[in-house]
Amino acid sequence: MNTTSIIALLHGPDQSGLVAKVSGWIFDRKSNIHHADQHKDQEANIFFQRVEWTPSGQIDEEAAAFEKFAHDELGMAVKVAKSTDRPKVALFVSKIDHCFHDTILRFRSGEMAGELACIISNHEALKADAEIYGIPFYHVPVNKDTKATAEARQLEIVHQHNTQLVVMARYMQVLSDEFLANAACPVINIHHSFLPAFAGGKPYHQAHTRGVKLIGATAHYATADLDEGPIIHQDVTRINHRNSVSDLIRKGKDLEKSVFAQAIRLHLDNRILVYHNKTVVFD
Amino acid sequence: MNTTSIIALLHGPDQSGLVAKVSGWIFDRKSNIHHADQHKDQEANIFFQRVEWTPSGQIDEEAAAFEKFAHDELGMAVKVAKSTDRPKVALFVSKIDHCFHDTILRFRSGEMAGELACIISNHEALKADAEIYGIPFYHVPVNKDTKATAEARQLEIVHQHNTQLVVMARYMQVLSDEFLANAACPVINIHHSFLPAFAGGKPYHQAHTRGVKLIGATAHYATADLDEGPIIHQDVTRINHRNSVSDLIRKGKDLEKSVFAQAIRLHLDNRILVYHNKTVVFD
Amino acid sequence: MNTTSIIALLHGPDQSGLVAKVSGWIFDRKSNIHHADQHKDQEANIFFQRVEWTPSGQIDEEAAAFEKFAHDELGMAVKVAKSTDRPKVALFVSKIDHCFHDTILRFRSGEMAGELACIISNHEALKADAEIYGIPFYHVPVNKDTKATAEARQLEIVHQHNTQLVVMARYMQVLSDEFLANAACPVINIHHSFLPAFAGGKPYHQAHTRGVKLIGATAHYATADLDEGPIIHQDVTRINHRNSVSDLIRKGKDLEKSVFAQAIRLHLDNRILVYHNKTVVFD
Amino acid sequence: MNTTSIIALLHGPDQSGLVAKVSGWIFDRKSNIHHADQHKDQEANIFFQRVEWTPSGQIDEEAAAFEKFAHDELGMAVKVAKSTDRPKVALFVSKIDHCFHDTILRFRSGEMAGELACIISNHEALKADAEIYGIPFYHVPVNKDTKATAEARQLEIVHQHNTQLVVMARYMQVLSDEFLANAACPVINIHHSFLPAFAGGKPYHQAHTRGVKLIGATAHYATADLDEGPIIHQDVTRINHRNSVSDLIRKGKDLEKSVFAQAIRLHLDNRILVYHNKTVVFD
Repeated sequence: MNTTSIIALLHGPDQSGLVAKVSGWIFDRKSNIHHADQHKDQEANIFFQRVEWTPSGQIDEEAAAFEKFAHDELGMAVKVAKSTDRPKVALFVSKIDHCFHDTILRFRSGEMAGELACIISNHEALKADAEIYGIPFYHVPVNKDTKATAEARQLEIVHQHNTQLVVMARYMQVLSDEFLANAACPVINIHHSFLPAFAGGKPYHQAHTRGVKLIGATAHYATADLDEGPIIHQDVTRINHRNSVSDLIRKGKDLEKSVFAQAIRLHLDNRILVYHNKTVVFD
Repeated sequence: MNTTSIIALLHGPDQSGLVAKVSGWIFDRKSNIHHADQHKDQEANIFFQRVEWTPSGQIDEEAAAFEKFAHDELGMAVKVAKSTDRPKVALFVSKIDHCFHDTILRFRSGEMAGELACIISNHEALKADAEIYGIPFYHVPVNKDTKATAEARQLEIVHQHNTQLVVMARYMQVLSDEFLANAACPVINIHHSFLPAFAGGKPYHQAHTRGVKLIGATAHYATADLDEGPIIHQDVTRINHRNSVSDLIRKGKDLEKSVFAQAIRLHLDNRILVYHNKTVVFD
Repeated sequence: MNTTSIIALLHGPDQSGLVAKVSGWIFDRKSNIHHADQHKDQEANIFFQRVEWTPSGQIDEEAAAFEKFAHDELGMAVKVAKSTDRPKVALFVSKIDHCFHDTILRFRSGEMAGELACIISNHEALKADAEIYGIPFYHVPVNKDTKATAEARQLEIVHQHNTQLVVMARYMQVLSDEFLANAACPVINIHHSFLPAFAGGKPYHQAHTRGVKLIGATAHYATADLDEGPIIHQDVTRINHRNSVSDLIRKGKDLEKSVFAQAIRLHLDNRILVYHNKTVVFD
Repeated sequence: MNTTSIIALLHGPDQSGLVAKVSGWIFDRKSNIHHADQHKDQEANIFFQRVEWTPSGQIDEEAAAFEKFAHDELGMAVKVAKSTDRPKVALFVSKIDHCFHDTILRFRSGEMAGELACIISNHEALKADAEIYGIPFYHVPVNKDTKATAEARQLEIVHQHNTQLVVMARYMQVLSDEFLANAACPVINIHHSFLPAFAGGKPYHQAHTRGVKLIGATAHYATADLDEGPIIHQDVTRINHRNSVSDLIRKGKDLEKSVFAQAIRLHLDNRILVYHNKTVVFD
């Protein structure tokens, strides 16, 4: 008997009986649903579903058959994965190291359903640490003039490692539309504010100047518009008048680490669907 | 076309194809599922489901047919309700008034899918306010010697109003096993601590003595064992060394109001299933 | 012996020995400090202090003497109050009633160190409730053409009641610069978003469209620039993709009530100093 | 001019004019107070103060003079430190590594005002990692029969490194009264529940069985009574019926890391006073 399960993420125009058709298809093949979660956006008339089951037949055949069924018969966009999949992840970093260490340690501890395949940085500051962790480190310097060349090199590395997810751990550089299009995989970024408040640079300084009583962090998919992509996860923490900008930075680090990690975990567990610049997160 | 929907809460021994059978039954009757949420307790092998749909046939017939199907063919314990149901609720109070006002105002604003049918109190302190709100108020004094008689009178009032839910807004008296058994409806209590910490009397004093850094509130179904019933909802708030017991009481009031209200709302929306002294809350 | 204490709020250019001078002055008059909290804005070089003590002499004389000392000898801006002061508060409301009831009930329960003197509304929706609570209700209709006249009438009422604080419980109208200048007292507003995110109208709709994962509320002093005044208190609550705009509105009500109440309480307890469009909150 | 400041923590029987006497002493020596925070426990009649100033004279002489003044003239228990102090810290670990890595990385990043001097473990699991971090690692196996000998060896190591603080990063062993007495320095422990709920072993299993809706973590000073010491910091996170014990453990790790780190930071910043099994935290 299989212990591996199939996870399918579906979405498309709502129609009558979708839950019955999906669960009926699985039941007819003598397979057992473990979890099924669905959502309808009533205004947009879109149906979303995450369903997880143990197939009784050969797993890759069953996965392919379901994909065909969902696409051809239900007219749904569909992604099918196996619970044992461990997609390759590329980690983009700069010189700031708190998300870097936190992310790597979480992958190493088995908390993440993926594999850190490579680290790409525009600085060499974290090279020695990356080597200790045993993860290939690529130094790709970037400046205004070399950005196109640098991104071409970054893409080369990303593709060479069969990367299925890029995560930007305070990388501090904007990735161009061309990069995002050619990477051909999702890119998750962590922004150090409660977006849409304090988009752009130096958000902790902005927060300090405005005198807010809470600071936040936002993990989102990167899009062509900086800080405007679909939000995956957010959290905040309380601050007060005694806190300097450096206190905000210190407190914010803990937020950034946990919000970023949560977003990566949700993505790798196939719990996120994106539409209309928003996310459905089946947590 | 119906605008009222049917909500069913099911639970029972897990078996293959339950999701398919339930959704198939609904689909076969040309009805449309709005929401379906399910959960399996893997250890206990129990299946739980909340499903909401608009029937295409006559609603009471469809509801009755589903109840029979779920019980007879699936072997499930089942509760079926309509989205337009407004069950009668009895409010037990003492002299403390913050949960009293908060609860009544929420019912009056339409936030709760129920109707406050009567108020029962062992004191007359809130009688005048109850009359202004236009809700029948019953003064039933209780002391050690008259407890049995008092509870008999309370039960009489509860039954006379066809009460389907009793909510204890800081009533400060323990209801006996006999009362709970004969009330024949769920009873929700609010306890002013983060249970199981500080069960019993004077929890804010206990919290102050122990020097905790957070205080909490817990809404739970009342059972024979005081403060031991299934927990529905909990929340906490931060305190510090400057806070006296009276500060804790003030801060706690806000917690008690919101936790109590949330629990009543979840119950009236048919989102809670109870088993093994725990709750499944389909929120 | 006095049981009433004096509370002083000081701020001004930092100078050596301020803490010693203030506490020395109090000690020399054989009086006992209960609480003293101070803060320095290092960048702006401004000193802030809240100090509370029981005078051994006649309380009004001591209060006046301290005010003179702080102003003349220390060069500080100073506000002196007594712990028994109960300043008059004017409540501005529209048709939305959750903050209205919540605020009145908190004043009535003794949670606030002030007295609700009058209610001013541009609608008659809450008139009957105001009368039950026994608080004078003034209906002052406002439209684009009558705004100046309406504000003149509002000011008249505010002054007639010797109002020392105006609180806007979802009043939904912008008060003009002229009103704010002539009211001659602070005005606290509750905005239903985590400012500076979603300033302006319909913030819950904006939040829903942007797909944020937390919604918030912000209490701030009203200034000429809408939603730009000094922030007093903020809080947030978690939402998810299942929540419609009406769910956001329901969840937001609880935030608005508690954030608004907390801001009013802090103000009436003389715990807030304002400078550079920010607040120092000695909580 | 000095850039280093002196930090004093005082507590003792309340008396008239303490704030004036302390600030007057500092002012008389032409020194400038940066922060001063005080608290009175009204019931116990105890005065607490944390005061930080830049001395104009030679810093060690000034520190010694203040200590003498506070003790001899004010009758206070006093601890005096310099802002540049970096006390030696001993880290006790077992096989669980999340608090281990988190703590070390925080010390390494400069977030903590102390120095990790040594790691003591009853297992060899984290030896290789400790060596990579460049921190002396001591393997001291412990079992029921060898506990006394093992603790003697641990004390030897602790003293050899001039340890001024011991922190237990999920060490999972109880330290005896003798150890605590002879260590002659504070010991901070992290417990994986919201104490006093779920004291003792396997708190996440206890929480799962009881069906609570929030799990927590508590950092406290270790005392002879397990899980009964003065609480320094606590936090909680929300869970639901879908979470298995292993989900609780995963979610709890993030709580444990941040609560433990916060407690260590507060201690090393000289912000904590202990009395009557409670803490005053000047944050």
